[in-house]
Amino acid sequence: MSNDSKTTRITEPAAIESRSMEIINEELRARGARFASDNRELVILRRVIHTTADFDFADNLTFVNSATDAGVSALAQGSPIVTDTNMAKAGISRPALVRLGSSAHCFVADPDVAEAAREAQTTRAVMAMRKALRLHPDAILAVGNAPTALFELCEHLRAGAQPALVIAVPVGFVNVVEAKEETLALCKELGVPAIVARGRKGGSTVATAIANALLYEATRTK
Amino acid sequence: MSNDSKTTRITEPAAIESRSMEIINEELRARGARFASDNRELVILRRVIHTTADFDFADNLTFVNSATDAGVSALAQGSPIVTDTNMAKAGISRPALVRLGSSAHCFVADPDVAEAAREAQTTRAVMAMRKALRLHPDAILAVGNAPTALFELCEHLRAGAQPALVIAVPVGFVNVVEAKEETLALCKELGVPAIVARGRKGGSTVATAIANALLYEATRTK
Repeated sequence: MSNDSKTTRITEPAAIESRSMEIINEELRARGARFASDNRELVILRRVIHTTADFDFADNLTFVNSATDAGVSALAQGSPIVTDTNMAKAGISRPALVRLGSSAHCFVADPDVAEAAREAQTTRAVMAMRKALRLHPDAILAVGNAPTALFELCEHLRAGAQPALVIAVPVGFVNVVEAKEETLALCKELGVPAIVARGRKGGSTVATAIANALLYEATRTK
Repeated sequence: MSNDSKTTRITEPAAIESRSMEIINEELRARGARFASDNRELVILRRVIHTTADFDFADNLTFVNSATDAGVSALAQGSPIVTDTNMAKAGISRPALVRLGSSAHCFVADPDVAEAAREAQTTRAVMAMRKALRLHPDAILAVGNAPTALFELCEHLRAGAQPALVIAVPVGFVNVVEAKEETLALCKELGVPAIVARGRKGGSTVATAIANALLYEATRTK
């Protein structure tokens, strides 16, 4: 089977995806991945690797407080997803959102957010997080870009905010590791479900891949 | 300087970006990166690493036929960028596009593309590439997702198509390496400027990072 893809070109999209997942499974197994083969954390991890071709996520991706079940249940009940970038929002599966009665939102480009950020001399990401928590206090919050959004979120978590799930996967070199570690420790302590990509790696495509994997799981169980 | 980010939190966006680029420069230098420190290829590479935190791109990212100069010149003259996903399009800098009189397009979700793909029993990515080459024959074509879009592009290149620049950076496990190698070899042979992420890695954020790096270079020289 292993050299099939070299000799015959697979062209059917569903066949490409299933062959890709087979390859990912084989390589995860060869790495001695720490996941049981049938659980939802593995489903999420596979989708992230499918999106990045980066097996580092097998070591980096961390789940606390039954994060995957919390995310799937929330989506099955129509909870919205709020992203920190329009790029992440653009990648979220419309058909799955529609099927579940869920929705995706991003406030970072809203004029009132820009205005509030200027007045408060902070980032738009901070004010967008504040707006998200005000309008959708029980949302799934997916942060793939802005560590400042996570620092803001942490203050609200300390004050009692209870999002359905935090997806904390910004990418970068400055403040990023610190923001993700603080979010992870705080969520763990407060019982807030969270999926965190530890270390520098992450990004909008990673946030989207996790959201979509949860959406697909929710539609499967619907 | 190296542990500044641990002791003092840098919060100003421009300062965060410049500190990030310093860290990337330091690590590229430590790896003995093959780029001269002041050229445009290094500028593009740094932006890709900034977006992925993945130094593999220092080995994978390949430029042929004066790709960066071709891309910057085309954008300075207002050439459009066509992406293969709406996610990639969503990440492209609006202010830079406006400033240059350029524009970004993605046809993959167009009803006529979906209809044509159904009729021809092929992927929407193939028909979207065909539409892109018809409407914008001199565009910058940025492919971050669909290897089938690259196979289609290769047929048009053989038939004489001459896009301003090909950005070939799909991510994945099936057909992806083959599609990028075929595109790279063909562009090299035909004199078409191309930027290719060899191997499995790439994605929408990588396509967007390259497009934005070229846009920023074009606005700097304007």
